[in-house]
Amino acid sequence: GAGLIGTSIGLALREVGVDVALEDTAAGRLALAAELGAGRSVVAGEAFDLAVVAIPPAFVSAELSRLQRLDLARTYTDVASVKAEPQAQAEAMNVDMTRYVGSHPVAGSERPGPAAAHSDLFVGRPWVVTNSAVSAPDAVSDVRALAVACGAVPVYMDAATHDAALATVSHLPHVVAALLAAQLTVAAEETVTLGGTGLHDTTRVAAGDAELWTQILAANAGHLADALGAFASDAQRTADDLRLI
Amino acid sequence: GAGLIGTSIGLALREVGVDVALEDTAAGRLALAAELGAGRSVVAGEAFDLAVVAIPPAFVSAELSRLQRLDLARTYTDVASVKAEPQAQAEAMNVDMTRYVGSHPVAGSERPGPAAAHSDLFVGRPWVVTNSAVSAPDAVSDVRALAVACGAVPVYMDAATHDAALATVSHLPHVVAALLAAQLTVAAEETVTLGGTGLHDTTRVAAGDAELWTQILAANAGHLADALGAFASDAQRTADDLRLI
Repeated sequence: GAGLIGTSIGLALREVGVDVALEDTAAGRLALAAELGAGRSVVAGEAFDLAVVAIPPAFVSAELSRLQRLDLARTYTDVASVKAEPQAQAEAMNVDMTRYVGSHPVAGSERPGPAAAHSDLFVGRPWVVTNSAVSAPDAVSDVRALAVACGAVPVYMDAATHDAALATVSHLPHVVAALLAAQLTVAAEETVTLGGTGLHDTTRVAAGDAELWTQILAANAGHLADALGAFASDAQRTADDLRLI
Repeated sequence: GAGLIGTSIGLALREVGVDVALEDTAAGRLALAAELGAGRSVVAGEAFDLAVVAIPPAFVSAELSRLQRLDLARTYTDVASVKAEPQAQAEAMNVDMTRYVGSHPVAGSERPGPAAAHSDLFVGRPWVVTNSAVSAPDAVSDVRALAVACGAVPVYMDAATHDAALATVSHLPHVVAALLAAQLTVAAEETVTLGGTGLHDTTRVAAGDAELWTQILAANAGHLADALGAFASDAQRTADDLRLI
Protein backbone atom coordinates (compact mmCIF):
# COMPACT_ATOMS: atom_id res chain seq x y z
CA GLY A 1 0.00 0.00 0.00
CA ALA A 2 1.49 3.34 -1.13
CA GLY A 3 -0.38 5.61 1.28
CA LEU A 4 1.16 7.92 3.88
CA ILE A 5 2.76 5.13 5.94
CA GLY A 6 3.71 2.73 3.12
CA THR A 7 5.31 5.48 1.05
CA SER A 8 7.15 6.89 4.09
CA ILE A 9 8.56 3.43 4.84
CA GLY A 10 9.66 3.09 1.20
CA LEU A 11 11.38 6.48 1.29
CA ALA A 12 13.13 5.67 4.58
CA LEU A 13 14.33 2.27 3.35
CA ARG A 14 15.50 3.60 -0.01
CA GLU A 15 17.58 6.21 1.84
CA VAL A 16 19.57 3.44 3.53
CA GLY A 17 19.92 1.48 0.28
CA VAL A 18 17.28 -1.20 0.77
CA ASP A 19 15.58 -2.52 -2.41
CA VAL A 20 11.85 -1.70 -2.15
CA ALA A 21 9.04 -2.87 -4.45
CA LEU A 22 5.63 -1.19 -4.16
CA GLU A 23 2.12 -2.47 -4.77
CA ASP A 24 -1.20 -0.63 -4.54
CA THR A 25 -4.70 -1.13 -5.94
CA ALA A 26 -4.77 2.58 -6.90
CA ALA A 27 -2.53 3.16 -9.93
CA GLY A 28 -2.26 6.94 -9.36
CA ARG A 29 -1.12 6.53 -5.77
CA LEU A 30 1.40 3.88 -6.81
CA ALA A 31 2.80 6.08 -9.61
CA LEU A 32 3.18 9.08 -7.28
CA ALA A 33 4.95 7.01 -4.61
CA ALA A 34 7.35 5.59 -7.23
CA GLU A 35 7.98 9.07 -8.64
CA LEU A 36 8.81 10.32 -5.12
CA GLY A 37 11.48 7.59 -4.93
CA ALA A 38 9.74 5.24 -2.49
CA GLY A 39 10.43 2.12 -4.58
CA ARG A 40 10.10 0.25 -7.87
CA SER A 41 7.41 -2.00 -9.35
CA VAL A 42 7.07 -5.65 -8.38
CA VAL A 43 8.36 -8.14 -10.96
CA ALA A 44 6.03 -11.14 -11.37
CA GLY A 45 7.27 -14.22 -9.53
CA GLU A 46 9.95 -12.53 -7.42
CA ALA A 47 10.23 -13.19 -3.67
CA PHE A 48 11.13 -10.82 -0.82
CA ASP A 49 12.69 -10.90 2.64
CA LEU A 50 9.83 -8.92 4.16
CA ALA A 51 6.31 -7.97 3.02
CA VAL A 52 4.87 -4.86 4.71
CA VAL A 53 1.08 -4.71 4.51
CA ALA A 54 0.34 -0.97 4.82
CA ILE A 55 -3.43 -0.86 4.32
CA PRO A 56 -6.45 -0.07 6.53
CA PRO A 57 -6.90 -2.54 9.42
CA ALA A 58 -10.10 -4.22 8.16
CA PHE A 59 -8.28 -5.48 5.04
CA VAL A 60 -5.04 -6.65 6.69
CA SER A 61 -5.91 -10.30 7.37
CA ALA A 62 -7.23 -11.03 3.86
CA GLU A 63 -4.14 -9.44 2.32
CA LEU A 64 -1.80 -11.42 4.58
CA SER A 65 -3.60 -14.60 3.54
CA ARG A 66 -3.32 -13.69 -0.15
CA LEU A 67 0.38 -12.84 0.05
CA GLN A 68 1.22 -16.00 2.00
CA ARG A 69 -0.58 -18.12 -0.60
CA LEU A 70 1.68 -16.45 -3.21
CA ASP A 71 4.66 -17.24 -0.95
CA LEU A 72 5.74 -13.66 -1.61
CA ALA A 73 8.08 -13.19 1.35
CA ARG A 74 9.99 -14.84 4.17
CA THR A 75 8.37 -12.61 6.82
CA TYR A 76 5.15 -10.62 6.89
CA THR A 77 4.14 -7.61 8.97
CA ASP A 78 1.43 -4.96 8.92
CA VAL A 79 1.48 -1.39 10.22
CA ALA A 80 -2.15 -0.92 11.29
CA SER A 81 -2.78 1.18 14.41
CA VAL A 82 -4.96 -1.51 15.98
CA LYS A 83 -3.45 -4.95 16.49
CA ALA A 84 -5.69 -7.47 18.30
CA GLU A 85 -8.57 -7.64 15.81
CA PRO A 86 -6.45 -8.00 12.60
CA GLN A 87 -4.36 -10.63 14.44
CA ALA A 88 -7.45 -12.61 15.50
CA GLN A 89 -8.85 -12.37 11.96
CA ALA A 90 -5.53 -13.57 10.52
CA GLU A 91 -5.56 -16.59 12.85
CA ALA A 92 -9.14 -17.35 11.81
CA MET A 93 -8.04 -17.23 8.14
CA ASN A 94 -5.21 -19.70 8.83
CA VAL A 95 -2.44 -17.18 8.22
CA ASP A 96 0.90 -18.71 9.29
CA MET A 97 1.38 -16.82 12.56
CA THR A 98 5.00 -17.96 12.91
CA ARG A 99 5.93 -15.80 9.89
CA TYR A 100 3.47 -12.92 10.46
CA VAL A 101 4.51 -10.48 13.23
CA GLY A 102 2.26 -7.43 13.56
CA SER A 103 3.73 -3.99 14.11
CA HIS A 104 2.69 -0.36 14.45
CA PRO A 105 4.93 2.62 13.75
CA VAL A 106 3.41 5.29 16.03
CA ALA A 107 3.65 8.24 13.68
CA GLY A 108 1.37 9.88 11.19
CA SER A 109 -0.25 13.00 9.90
CA GLU A 110 -3.79 14.27 9.49
CA ARG A 111 -2.94 14.46 5.75
CA PRO A 112 -3.28 11.11 3.96
CA GLY A 113 -1.60 9.65 0.88
CA PRO A 114 1.90 9.53 -0.63
CA ALA A 115 2.07 13.32 -1.09
CA ALA A 116 2.26 13.70 2.72
CA ALA A 117 4.97 11.01 3.07
CA HIS A 118 8.43 11.76 4.51
CA SER A 119 11.49 9.55 4.89
CA ASP A 120 11.96 10.86 8.44
CA LEU A 121 8.36 10.27 9.61
CA PHE A 122 9.46 7.50 11.98
CA VAL A 123 12.75 8.92 13.27
CA GLY A 124 12.87 8.66 17.06
CA ARG A 125 9.24 7.46 17.23
CA PRO A 126 8.17 4.19 18.90
CA TRP A 127 7.54 1.26 16.54
CA VAL A 128 5.49 -1.29 18.43
CA VAL A 129 6.17 -4.93 17.56
CA THR A 130 3.36 -7.24 18.72
CA ASN A 131 5.10 -10.57 18.54
CA SER A 132 3.49 -13.54 20.30
CA ALA A 133 4.63 -16.88 21.73
CA VAL A 134 4.34 -18.52 18.30
CA SER A 135 6.36 -15.90 16.37
CA ALA A 136 9.54 -17.28 14.77
CA PRO A 137 12.54 -15.45 16.32
CA ASP A 138 14.00 -14.59 12.89
CA ALA A 139 10.62 -13.14 11.82
CA VAL A 140 10.67 -10.87 14.90
CA SER A 141 14.24 -9.87 13.94
CA ASP A 142 13.12 -9.01 10.41
CA VAL A 143 10.41 -6.67 11.73
CA ARG A 144 12.81 -5.18 14.28
CA ALA A 145 15.29 -4.51 11.43
CA LEU A 146 12.55 -2.71 9.48
CA ALA A 147 11.83 -0.41 12.45
CA VAL A 148 15.52 0.31 13.03
CA ALA A 149 16.18 0.98 9.32
CA CYS A 150 13.40 3.59 9.44
CA GLY A 151 15.05 5.30 12.42
CA ALA A 152 12.34 4.21 14.86
CA VAL A 153 12.66 2.70 18.35
CA PRO A 154 11.31 -0.88 18.53
CA VAL A 155 8.97 -1.47 21.50
CA TYR A 156 7.61 -4.95 22.26
CA MET A 157 4.16 -5.55 23.71
CA ASP A 158 1.24 -7.90 23.11
CA ALA A 159 -1.62 -6.82 20.87
CA ALA A 160 -4.12 -6.21 23.71
CA THR A 161 -1.67 -4.04 25.69
CA HIS A 162 -0.94 -2.05 22.53
CA ASP A 163 -4.63 -1.50 21.81
CA ALA A 164 -5.42 -0.36 25.38
CA ALA A 165 -2.48 2.08 25.31
CA LEU A 166 -3.43 3.49 21.90
CA ALA A 167 -7.03 3.93 23.07
CA THR A 168 -5.69 6.34 25.71
CA VAL A 169 -3.00 8.23 23.79
CA SER A 170 -4.43 8.28 20.26
CA HIS A 171 -7.99 7.05 19.76
CA LEU A 172 -9.48 8.90 22.75
CA PRO A 173 -7.85 12.25 21.79
CA HIS A 174 -9.10 11.71 18.24
CA VAL A 175 -12.71 11.14 19.30
CA VAL A 176 -12.53 14.05 21.75
CA ALA A 177 -11.23 16.35 19.01
CA ALA A 178 -14.05 15.19 16.72
CA LEU A 179 -16.65 15.76 19.48
CA LEU A 180 -15.24 19.27 20.07
CA ALA A 181 -15.30 20.01 16.34
CA ALA A 182 -18.91 18.74 16.27
CA GLN A 183 -19.87 21.35 18.91
CA LEU A 184 -18.66 24.03 16.51
CA THR A 185 -20.81 22.79 13.64
CA VAL A 186 -23.91 23.71 15.67
CA ALA A 187 -22.47 27.03 16.95
CA ALA A 188 -23.22 30.44 15.42
CA GLU A 189 -20.73 31.69 12.83
CA GLU A 190 -20.01 34.69 15.07
CA THR A 191 -18.97 32.23 17.77
CA VAL A 192 -16.67 30.18 15.54
CA THR A 193 -14.77 33.25 14.30
CA LEU A 194 -13.61 33.79 17.90
CA GLY A 195 -11.72 30.48 17.87
CA GLY A 196 -7.95 30.79 18.17
CA THR A 197 -4.87 28.61 17.78
CA GLY A 198 -5.78 26.70 20.94
CA LEU A 199 -9.05 25.60 19.36
CA HIS A 200 -7.27 24.82 16.08
CA ASP A 201 -4.72 22.59 17.79
CA THR A 202 -7.30 20.90 19.98
CA THR A 203 -9.39 19.89 16.97
CA ARG A 204 -6.62 19.40 14.34
CA VAL A 205 -6.49 15.60 14.48
CA ALA A 206 -10.23 15.48 13.75
CA ALA A 207 -9.28 16.41 10.17
CA GLY A 208 -7.75 12.95 9.63
CA ASP A 209 -8.96 10.45 7.02
CA ALA A 210 -12.54 9.76 8.22
CA GLU A 211 -12.93 6.34 6.58
CA LEU A 212 -9.63 5.06 7.96
CA TRP A 213 -10.40 6.43 11.43
CA THR A 214 -13.84 4.83 11.46
CA GLN A 215 -12.13 1.47 10.88
CA ILE A 216 -9.52 2.13 13.57
CA LEU A 217 -12.06 3.20 16.18
CA ALA A 218 -14.41 0.31 15.34
CA ALA A 219 -11.56 -2.20 15.58
CA ASN A 220 -10.63 -0.90 19.03
CA ALA A 221 -14.19 -0.21 20.21
CA GLY A 222 -13.92 -2.03 23.55
CA HIS A 223 -10.83 -0.27 24.88
CA LEU A 224 -11.97 3.03 23.41
CA ALA A 225 -15.42 2.75 25.02
CA ASP A 226 -13.71 2.22 28.40
CA ALA A 227 -11.44 5.25 27.94
CA LEU A 228 -14.19 7.48 26.54
CA GLY A 229 -16.66 6.41 29.25
CA ALA A 230 -14.15 7.34 31.98
CA PHE A 231 -13.48 10.63 30.22
CA ALA A 232 -17.21 11.39 29.87
CA SER A 233 -17.71 10.75 33.60
CA ASP A 234 -14.84 13.12 34.45
CA ALA A 235 -16.32 15.75 32.14
CA GLN A 236 -19.82 15.38 33.64
CA ARG A 237 -18.43 15.59 37.18
CA THR A 238 -16.49 18.75 36.25
CA ALA A 239 -19.64 20.27 34.69
CA ASP A 240 -21.55 19.48 37.91
CA ASP A 241 -18.77 21.06 40.01
CA LEU A 242 -18.90 24.21 37.85
CA ARG A 243 -22.62 24.58 38.58
CA LEU A 244 -21.80 24.83 42.29
CA ILE A 245 -19.61 27.93 41.76
CA GLY B 1 -0.24 44.92 33.90
CA ALA B 2 2.91 43.88 32.01
CA GLY B 3 2.05 40.23 31.43
CA LEU B 4 1.69 38.50 28.06
CA ILE B 5 -1.26 40.60 26.87
CA GLY B 6 -0.32 43.96 28.42
CA THR B 7 3.24 43.78 27.14
CA SER B 8 2.09 42.68 23.67
CA ILE B 9 -0.30 45.66 23.53
CA GLY B 10 2.56 47.96 24.58
CA LEU B 11 4.85 46.55 21.89
CA ALA B 12 2.14 46.87 19.22
CA LEU B 13 1.30 50.48 20.17
CA ARG B 14 4.94 51.54 20.41
CA GLU B 15 5.46 50.19 16.87
CA VAL B 16 2.88 52.66 15.53
CA GLY B 17 4.31 55.53 17.60
CA VAL B 18 1.80 55.66 20.48
CA ASP B 19 3.17 56.85 23.86
CA VAL B 20 2.74 53.96 26.34
CA ALA B 21 3.28 54.01 30.10
CA LEU B 22 3.39 50.69 31.99
CA GLU B 23 2.40 49.77 35.52
CA ASP B 24 2.67 46.43 37.30
CA THR B 25 2.78 45.25 40.94
CA ALA B 26 5.73 42.97 40.03
CA ALA B 27 8.88 45.07 39.55
CA GLY B 28 10.74 42.33 37.61
CA ARG B 29 7.92 41.89 35.12
CA LEU B 30 7.64 45.66 34.65
CA ALA B 31 11.40 46.04 34.10
CA LEU B 32 11.46 43.23 31.51
CA ALA B 33 8.49 44.71 29.60
CA ALA B 34 10.16 48.13 29.56
CA GLU B 35 13.45 46.61 28.42
CA LEU B 36 11.63 44.84 25.56
CA GLY B 37 10.37 48.24 24.44
CA ALA B 38 6.72 47.94 25.49
CA GLY B 39 6.63 51.36 27.17
CA ARG B 40 8.02 53.80 29.75
CA SER B 41 7.27 54.36 33.45
CA VAL B 42 4.25 56.34 34.64
CA VAL B 43 5.03 59.89 35.84
CA ALA B 44 3.10 60.75 39.02
CA GLY B 45 0.08 62.95 38.32
CA GLU B 46 -0.03 62.54 34.54
CA ALA B 47 -3.28 61.68 32.74
CA PHE B 48 -3.90 59.43 29.74
CA ASP B 49 -6.34 59.06 26.85
CA LEU B 50 -6.90 55.38 27.59
CA ALA B 51 -6.14 53.09 30.53
CA VAL B 52 -5.86 49.37 29.65
CA VAL B 53 -6.36 47.11 32.67
CA ALA B 54 -4.51 43.93 31.66
CA ILE B 55 -4.80 41.81 34.79
CA PRO B 56 -6.62 38.59 35.78
CA PRO B 57 -10.44 38.95 35.68
CA ALA B 58 -11.10 38.73 39.42
CA PHE B 59 -9.06 41.92 40.02
CA VAL B 60 -10.41 44.01 37.14
CA SER B 61 -13.29 45.81 38.87
CA ALA B 62 -11.26 46.92 41.91
CA GLU B 63 -8.50 48.23 39.64
CA LEU B 64 -10.99 50.12 37.45
CA SER B 65 -12.43 51.70 40.59
CA ARG B 66 -8.96 52.69 41.83
CA LEU B 67 -7.88 54.19 38.51
CA GLN B 68 -11.12 56.15 38.10
CA ARG B 69 -10.72 57.61 41.61
CA LEU B 70 -7.26 58.78 40.47
CA ASP B 71 -8.90 60.20 37.32
CA LEU B 72 -6.04 58.57 35.44
CA ALA B 73 -7.60 58.48 31.98
CA ARG B 74 -10.42 59.65 29.74
CA THR B 75 -11.45 56.09 28.85
CA TYR B 76 -10.95 52.73 30.57
CA THR B 77 -10.96 49.21 29.20
CA ASP B 78 -9.87 45.78 30.32
CA VAL B 79 -8.73 42.77 28.29
CA ALA B 80 -10.02 39.88 30.42
CA SER B 81 -11.31 36.81 28.58
CA VAL B 82 -14.57 36.81 30.55
CA LYS B 83 -16.72 39.92 30.43
CA ALA B 84 -20.09 39.67 32.27
CA GLU B 85 -18.80 39.06 35.80
CA PRO B 86 -16.11 41.81 35.85
CA GLN B 87 -18.69 44.19 34.33
CA ALA B 88 -21.30 43.34 36.99
CA GLN B 89 -18.67 43.74 39.72
CA ALA B 90 -17.63 47.10 38.29
CA GLU B 91 -21.24 48.29 38.32
CA ALA B 92 -21.59 47.13 41.94
CA MET B 93 -18.46 49.14 42.83
CA ASN B 94 -19.92 52.26 41.21
CA VAL B 95 -17.39 52.36 38.39
CA ASP B 96 -18.48 54.99 35.83
CA MET B 97 -19.80 52.68 33.13
CA THR B 98 -20.05 55.47 30.55
CA ARG B 99 -16.23 55.69 30.48
CA TYR B 100 -15.44 51.99 31.01
CA VAL B 101 -15.92 49.80 27.92
CA GLY B 102 -14.81 46.18 28.35
CA SER B 103 -12.88 44.41 25.61
CA HIS B 104 -11.19 41.11 24.86
CA PRO B 105 -8.43 40.60 22.32
CA VAL B 106 -8.91 36.93 21.37
CA ALA B 107 -5.28 35.91 21.19
CA GLY B 108 -2.80 34.38 23.56
CA SER B 109 -0.24 31.73 24.25
CA GLU B 110 0.15 28.89 26.71
CA ARG B 111 3.34 30.72 27.82
CA PRO B 112 2.66 33.58 30.25
CA GLY B 113 4.53 36.80 31.01
CA PRO B 114 6.31 39.55 29.08
CA ALA B 115 8.96 37.16 27.72
CA ALA B 116 6.26 35.51 25.55
CA ALA B 117 4.91 38.88 24.29
CA HIS B 118 4.90 39.83 20.58
CA SER B 119 3.88 43.05 18.86
CA ASP B 120 1.99 41.00 16.25
CA LEU B 121 0.03 38.85 18.72
CA PHE B 122 -3.27 40.53 17.76
CA VAL B 123 -2.76 40.95 14.00
CA GLY B 124 -5.84 39.72 12.16
CA ARG B 125 -7.41 38.38 15.37
CA PRO B 126 -10.87 39.39 16.65
CA TRP B 127 -10.90 42.00 19.43
CA VAL B 128 -14.31 41.85 21.08
CA VAL B 129 -15.67 45.18 22.37
CA THR B 130 -18.50 44.67 24.89
CA ASN B 131 -20.01 48.13 24.88
CA SER B 132 -23.46 48.57 26.43
CA ALA B 133 -26.37 51.04 26.13
CA VAL B 134 -24.72 53.36 28.65
CA SER B 135 -21.25 53.47 27.01
CA ALA B 136 -20.21 56.95 25.83
CA PRO B 137 -19.75 56.82 22.02
CA ASP B 138 -16.28 58.43 22.24
CA ALA B 139 -15.23 55.84 24.85
CA VAL B 140 -16.26 53.05 22.43
CA SER B 141 -14.23 54.83 19.72
CA ASP B 142 -11.17 54.95 22.00
CA VAL B 143 -11.33 51.19 22.58
CA ARG B 144 -11.96 50.55 18.88
CA ALA B 145 -8.86 52.64 18.07
CA LEU B 146 -6.80 50.52 20.48
CA ALA B 147 -7.88 47.33 18.71
CA VAL B 148 -7.18 48.75 15.25
CA ALA B 149 -3.77 50.13 16.31
CA CYS B 150 -2.84 46.60 17.44
CA GLY B 151 -3.81 45.21 14.02
CA ALA B 152 -6.91 43.42 15.35
CA VAL B 153 -10.46 43.30 13.98
CA PRO B 154 -13.01 44.96 16.32
CA VAL B 155 -16.12 42.83 16.93
CA TYR B 156 -19.04 44.18 18.95
CA MET B 157 -21.21 42.00 21.18
CA ASP B 158 -22.72 42.17 24.65
CA ALA B 159 -20.89 40.60 27.56
CA ALA B 160 -23.23 37.59 27.91
CA THR B 161 -23.00 36.72 24.18
CA HIS B 162 -19.21 37.00 24.41
CA ASP B 163 -19.03 34.70 27.43
CA ALA B 164 -21.29 32.05 25.87
CA ALA B 165 -19.20 32.11 22.66
CA LEU B 166 -15.89 31.89 24.54
CA ALA B 167 -17.24 28.99 26.61
CA THR B 168 -17.59 27.05 23.33
CA VAL B 169 -14.45 28.05 21.45
CA SER B 170 -11.95 28.56 24.28
CA HIS B 171 -12.98 27.52 27.77
CA LEU B 172 -14.49 24.16 26.76
CA PRO B 173 -11.43 23.15 24.65
CA HIS B 174 -9.22 24.17 27.59
CA VAL B 175 -11.09 22.01 30.09
CA VAL B 176 -11.24 19.12 27.63
CA ALA B 177 -7.47 19.34 27.07
CA ALA B 178 -6.93 19.37 30.83
CA LEU B 179 -9.23 16.35 31.30
CA LEU B 180 -7.33 14.50 28.54
CA ALA B 181 -4.00 15.38 30.12
CA ALA B 182 -5.39 14.15 33.45
CA GLN B 183 -6.09 10.73 31.89
CA LEU B 184 -2.39 10.49 31.07
CA THR B 185 -1.29 11.18 34.63
CA VAL B 186 -2.92 7.89 35.69
CA ALA B 187 -1.67 5.93 32.65
CA ALA B 188 1.40 3.65 32.65
CA GLU B 189 4.66 5.26 31.48
CA GLU B 190 4.83 2.69 28.65
CA THR B 191 1.45 4.02 27.48
CA VAL B 192 2.41 7.70 27.59
CA THR B 193 5.59 7.14 25.51
CA LEU B 194 3.32 6.06 22.64
CA GLY B 195 1.75 9.53 22.46
CA GLY B 196 2.44 11.44 19.26
CA THR B 197 2.04 14.96 17.92
CA GLY B 198 -1.74 14.54 17.82
CA LEU B 199 -1.79 13.99 21.57
CA HIS B 200 0.64 16.86 22.10
CA ASP B 201 -1.54 19.28 20.14
CA THR B 202 -4.75 18.09 21.73
CA THR B 203 -3.40 18.72 25.23
CA ARG B 204 -1.11 21.74 24.56
CA VAL B 205 -3.46 24.43 25.86
CA ALA B 206 -3.71 22.58 29.18
CA ALA B 207 -0.18 23.90 29.85
CA GLY B 208 -1.53 27.45 30.26
CA ASP B 209 -1.24 29.51 33.45
CA ALA B 210 -3.27 27.42 35.93
CA GLU B 211 -4.12 30.24 38.36
CA LEU B 212 -5.30 32.55 35.59
CA TRP B 213 -7.33 29.77 33.96
CA THR B 214 -8.98 28.86 37.26
CA GLN B 215 -10.20 32.46 37.50
CA ILE B 216 -11.40 32.50 33.89
CA LEU B 217 -13.29 29.21 34.18
CA ALA B 218 -14.81 30.18 37.54
CA ALA B 219 -15.94 33.55 36.17
CA ASN B 220 -17.67 31.82 33.24
CA ALA B 221 -18.86 28.78 35.20
CA GLY B 222 -22.50 28.92 34.04
CA HIS B 223 -21.90 28.99 30.30
CA LEU B 224 -19.00 26.57 30.65
CA ALA B 225 -21.09 24.09 32.66
CA ASP B 226 -23.70 24.15 29.86
CA ALA B 227 -21.09 23.56 27.14
CA LEU B 228 -19.21 20.90 29.12
CA GLY B 229 -22.44 19.14 30.13
CA ALA B 230 -23.53 18.91 26.47
CA PHE B 231 -20.06 17.70 25.54
CA ALA B 232 -20.07 15.06 28.32
CA SER B 233 -23.46 13.76 27.12
CA ASP B 234 -22.14 13.47 23.56
CA ALA B 235 -19.05 11.65 24.81
CA GLN B 236 -21.12 9.25 26.94
CA ARG B 237 -23.49 8.55 24.03
CA THR B 238 -20.50 7.85 21.76
CA ALA B 239 -19.01 5.50 24.38
CA ASP B 240 -22.35 3.68 24.59
CA ASP B 241 -22.51 3.41 20.78
CA LEU B 242 -18.98 1.97 20.71
CA ARG B 243 -20.05 -0.80 23.10
CA LEU B 244 -22.65 -1.92 20.54
CA ILE B 245 -19.97 -2.57 17.86
